[in-house]
Amino acid sequence: MTTSSCSYCHPENEFVLWRDEQCRVLLVEQTDFTGWCRVVWNQHLAELSDLDEQQRHRIMQVVAEVEHNIRELMAPKKINLASLGTGLPHLHWHIIPRNEDDSHFPEPVWCQPLRPGVVRPLAKNFVDEMKKRLSAAL
Amino acid sequence: MTTSSCSYCHPENEFVLWRDEQCRVLLVEQTDFTGWCRVVWNQHLAELSDLDEQQRHRIMQVVAEVEHNIRELMAPKKINLASLGTGLPHLHWHIIPRNEDDSHFPEPVWCQPLRPGVVRPLAKNFVDEMKKRLSAAL
Repeated sequence: MTTSSCSYCHPENEFVLWRDEQCRVLLVEQTDFTGWCRVVWNQHLAELSDLDEQQRHRIMQVVAEVEHNIRELMAPKKINLASLGTGLPHLHWHIIPRNEDDSHFPEPVWCQPLRPGVVRPLAKNFVDEMKKRLSAAL
Repeated sequence: MTTSSCSYCHPENEFVLWRDEQCRVLLVEQTDFTGWCRVVWNQHLAELSDLDEQQRHRIMQVVAEVEHNIRELMAPKKINLASLGTGLPHLHWHIIPRNEDDSHFPEPVWCQPLRPGVVRPLAKNFVDEMKKRLSAAL
């Protein structure tokens, strides 16, 4: 993959909750796992170990801060974290709130669903709260 | 889940490549994704954001070091990182080498296989090299 064909290098219609010069936090809008966020490293790199130590500390600080606030605002049973990138090798983290009555629990969200599943509403003021909290903490 | 029923609190038959008082690196032995390793936090915690900053730096340093050496020794097309824990909520990271001819590429390894897939042999001296390198770096 070249950067010219990478959708994280040429984003369209991203719902940005926070960003700086190194990375950004996106809300996934079309999902049954409400509150799913992504942390995207702005530069086109594939792997966590392509970052230097300070860069790795920073992206994982952002991931942990997003996770912490999703837990506070959505109170999920569990959080899934994943940096896969086999389809799109541009470093990005998934932060996915999971609940026992969701369509896939306890299986990963990328597998076949086990049941129709309950889709929760986004917590009241989720977007405003995430923007405010991330801006204050990061 | 209580610690008494947690298999990471009461491990059996783990193939340990490295450990200290905070966490350990395991080789997954029965897998079609040869070189798959896990980093397990020794204390029974569920989420990355349950760690303090220094603990988070440490576990992610270990994850990145394992990833770096799997890349050097196995030369995979991509690495998948994941901390899921929906089935077993004890903080542990998967570091999974992926190749285009594996059974699932580009889908996650937890989904249905797409093809029989090529299973690579473990790199020559993989276990000894990982033990030596992790011990030197960590």
